[in-house]
Amino acid sequence: MTHISLDLENLKHITDTQELNAMQPEVDRMHQMLERGEGQGSDYLGWLHLPSGTTPDSIEVIQKAARNIQERCTALIVIGIGGSYLGAKAAVDFIGHTFSNQISGNGKTKIYFAGQNISSDYLSDLLDAIGDEDICLNVISKSGTTTEPAIAFRILKEYLEKKYGAEKARQRIWVTTDQAKGALKSLADAQGYPQFVIPDDVGGRYSVLTPVGLLPMAVAGIDIAAVIEGARKMEELCTVQANMGENPAYLYSVIRYLLYSKGFPLELMASFHPAFGTVMEWWKQLAGESEGKNLRGIFPASVQYTTDLHSLGQWVQEGNRIVFETFILLDTSSRQLEIPQFDNDDDGLNYLAGKSLDFVNDKAYKGTAMAHLEGGVPNLAIHLKERSAEALGQLFYFFERAVALTGYLCRVNPFDQPGVEFYKKNMFALLKKPGYGKGN
Amino acid sequence: MTHISLDLENLKHITDTQELNAMQPEVDRMHQMLERGEGQGSDYLGWLHLPSGTTPDSIEVIQKAARNIQERCTALIVIGIGGSYLGAKAAVDFIGHTFSNQISGNGKTKIYFAGQNISSDYLSDLLDAIGDEDICLNVISKSGTTTEPAIAFRILKEYLEKKYGAEKARQRIWVTTDQAKGALKSLADAQGYPQFVIPDDVGGRYSVLTPVGLLPMAVAGIDIAAVIEGARKMEELCTVQANMGENPAYLYSVIRYLLYSKGFPLELMASFHPAFGTVMEWWKQLAGESEGKNLRGIFPASVQYTTDLHSLGQWVQEGNRIVFETFILLDTSSRQLEIPQFDNDDDGLNYLAGKSLDFVNDKAYKGTAMAHLEGGVPNLAIHLKERSAEALGQLFYFFERAVALTGYLCRVNPFDQPGVEFYKKNMFALLKKPGYGKGN
Repeated sequence: MTHISLDLENLKHITDTQELNAMQPEVDRMHQMLERGEGQGSDYLGWLHLPSGTTPDSIEVIQKAARNIQERCTALIVIGIGGSYLGAKAAVDFIGHTFSNQISGNGKTKIYFAGQNISSDYLSDLLDAIGDEDICLNVISKSGTTTEPAIAFRILKEYLEKKYGAEKARQRIWVTTDQAKGALKSLADAQGYPQFVIPDDVGGRYSVLTPVGLLPMAVAGIDIAAVIEGARKMEELCTVQANMGENPAYLYSVIRYLLYSKGFPLELMASFHPAFGTVMEWWKQLAGESEGKNLRGIFPASVQYTTDLHSLGQWVQEGNRIVFETFILLDTSSRQLEIPQFDNDDDGLNYLAGKSLDFVNDKAYKGTAMAHLEGGVPNLAIHLKERSAEALGQLFYFFERAVALTGYLCRVNPFDQPGVEFYKKNMFALLKKPGYGKGN
Repeated sequence: MTHISLDLENLKHITDTQELNAMQPEVDRMHQMLERGEGQGSDYLGWLHLPSGTTPDSIEVIQKAARNIQERCTALIVIGIGGSYLGAKAAVDFIGHTFSNQISGNGKTKIYFAGQNISSDYLSDLLDAIGDEDICLNVISKSGTTTEPAIAFRILKEYLEKKYGAEKARQRIWVTTDQAKGALKSLADAQGYPQFVIPDDVGGRYSVLTPVGLLPMAVAGIDIAAVIEGARKMEELCTVQANMGENPAYLYSVIRYLLYSKGFPLELMASFHPAFGTVMEWWKQLAGESEGKNLRGIFPASVQYTTDLHSLGQWVQEGNRIVFETFILLDTSSRQLEIPQFDNDDDGLNYLAGKSLDFVNDKAYKGTAMAHLEGGVPNLAIHLKERSAEALGQLFYFFERAVALTGYLCRVNPFDQPGVEFYKKNMFALLKKPGYGKGN
C-alpha cells in the first residue's frame, strides 16, 4: 500500500482534531474543484490523473529510447532548467549511488546536467569531465528558446559535431518538447531527432512524471514503471479519499496552511538522509512557485541533518520563531553499517558498538524533534518506507497533490508563475534582444 | 587591495546616508569592544587577529604535511562536522574544479568528506568510491567525542587497518584537535599521529583559517599562504577602519541589522556562480549560529541563480514580503566561453553570438536585482573580484567581521551556541549513553 505516513505528535499543542475536522468541508469543496477542473489554473491539471493515464506502451517507448541511449553512450547530458531539471535530478540523486559518476566500470551510463545556469566555469568544467566519454544529449524545453538551456545546447551541439561530425552528432540528440510548436520542435523535425512530448496541460514543476523526468531516470537505470505505479497508487488514494484521516497529502496540506495562518511563514524541510537533498530542491520549486504570489506564501527552505544541526541548528532551536519544521524520513537505509567495537574506548562509543547507523540516526531525529518542539518550533514528520522507485513515485505525487490544495486554500492559482517573467524581461532589454525595449 | 566591494544602489529607498551615519557611533563603540575584548564571548576572539598572527613557519608546517599526504595517498578523507567541515569544503569547492574527484590522472589528491552525517547509505557509498584509492584521513574534532565524526572515524579506521595493517594505517592518519586535552588528543599522542591544533579561543564556525580549514585546502592544492594573505589584508582594513564608508564588512553588517529591524527576517544569499554553493553553506552556519538566539536573528537562506530563478524566483518576486536579498557576485569567471554563431537561428540566440557567458550572466543579475527591487525585495550586492585563494581569504574574513558586529548590534553573544546542545542531550538519553538520563 502506501509507503508514506505522517507523524503529527509534535503538533498537538498547536492544532487539534476539532480544528482539522472544521477544515474538512473546505477540503471536500477544493477536492471537487480539483477533480472537476473548476478551480483557478484548471488548464494545467494534466498532472492530476497522469499516472493512471500512463500506459505500459508509453513507458516501453521511453525505456526503449533509454536502452538505445545506454548502448550508444557512456554519459548522457540532460539540458534543462527549473521543472526540466529538478525532477530528473531529484530521482537520479535519490535512487542512485552517491558517487555514481565516479564509480567507473559498473556499466551504467553517467548522468550530467547542463543548461541550469549561465556559468562558464561550470560548463567548461563539464566539458573536461566528459572528455573521455561517449556523449548523448537530452534537450528538454517546451519552447526551445529559454536562454540557459538554449545556450548550453548551442555549445554542446557544437562540441558533439566537432567530436563526431554533423551526421553522427545528429544521432546522439533526444529532444523533449512541445508536441506541435516552438523552436526546439521545428529543429527536431528538421533534424530528425527522436522526440518526446511535454503535455500542454502539465506545468514545468508538475512534469516529473512525464518524459521530462522519465527519460533521464530510465537512462540512469531507474525502474520508471515502478515510479509510475507508486504515483498511481497515491493518485488513486487521493482521488477516492478527500478525507484527511485517510489522505496524507491533504492532511499535510491543511497542516501547512494552518501553521502558515498562525504566524509561521517559513517551512523548513529537514532530512536525515543525504539522498533527499535534491528531492527537497524539487519540493522547493513545487511549493514556492505554486504558493508564492499575491505577496503571500510559505517560504520553503531545506536543511540536511545531522549536518546542518551543526550549522543552522542553533537558529532553529533558539532563533526567530517564524518557522515550522517538516522532517522527511527514511524508515530504512538501502545499505546497513554497524558501529564496530574497539578495545580502546577513548571516544566513548562502545555503548553503541553493534548498533546500526540507522538506529543512531533515528534517535538523532527523535531527539531533534523533541528539542525543537520545546524550543517553539512545531514539527511533523513524513515517513517514507525506503529508497525505492515506487516509494519515490508516491512521494512525488503526494507533494503535487498537497501543494495544489494548499494553493487553493490560500486563494491563489497554484499552476501559474507570472513573477518568473519579470527578471527575464529586464535581462532581455539589457541584452538588447530583438523586440525588447531598453532596460529601465 | 581589497577584492570585495558592495553595491547598495537597490537599497536607496529603504535606507539613506543619514540613517547609516547615525549608526556610526554605535559601530565605533562595538568596534572598540571587539578590539579590546570587552564584549560578550570575548574568550572566543582568537579569529580576530588570526591572519596577521599566522607566521610563514606555521604555514610551511601545514604545507609540508600536505605534501606528505599528497605523496602518500590519492584521496584524503576529511572527517568532521559543522565548522570542522564547512570551511574546508567551501574552499575546496570554490577554488577547485567542479568535477575534481572525477577528473582522473591530473595528479591531484582527491578530497572526500565523512562524519558530517549519520547516513549508512552515504558512508557505504563512500567506501565504494574510495575502493581503488590510496587513502589518508584527516580527523578534525576538538573533543574527539562528537558522535558523527567519531562514528565515521571508527568505521574508516577499521577499513584502513584491514587494507594496510594496523602499523601502516597508523601512518595514514592526521589529527586536528585540542592542544592539551580530549579523547582525540589522547589517542593521537598514544598512536603518534601527526597533530594540528584547534586554538581554544576560536569557535568552530570561525576556524576556517586555522589548520581545521588550511590542511585540507593545502592537500587540495590551494595556495594557503595566499588565503591567509587575503584574510590579513581584510583584517588590517577592518582593524584600522571602523568607518562604514571604508569598511565594507561593517557596512554590510549594519545594513543587515537595519533591514532585519525594518521587518525583513529572512536574508536570501543569491549567487550566480555554482562555485559559491558551499561558501554560502559556510556563511549560513556563521550567520545563523552567531545570531540565531534569544528568539531573534535573521534566517540565512541561499539560492543559486539562475537555476533557482526557475524554482524560487516566483516566490522571491511576488511572495511573502519578509525577505531581503544579498547577491554574491564574481566579477570574472576563471574560464571563458562564448556563444557560437549558428546558421540556423531557430532558437533566436544569434543576437548573443560572440558574447561571453559572463556577459549574459551579468545581465541576468542586473535584470534580477531590478525586478526583485520592483517586487518589494530590497537587495544589495557583494562583488568578489575572482575565484582566487586571496579573494577567498578576504571573503572569509569579511563575513566573520560582519557577523560578529551584527551579533553585537543585536545584543547577543555572537560566539556561543547554547542551543546546539539540546538535541544532543535528548539523543544521548534515547541512545542510553552512560551518564545521560532517560529520554523525556
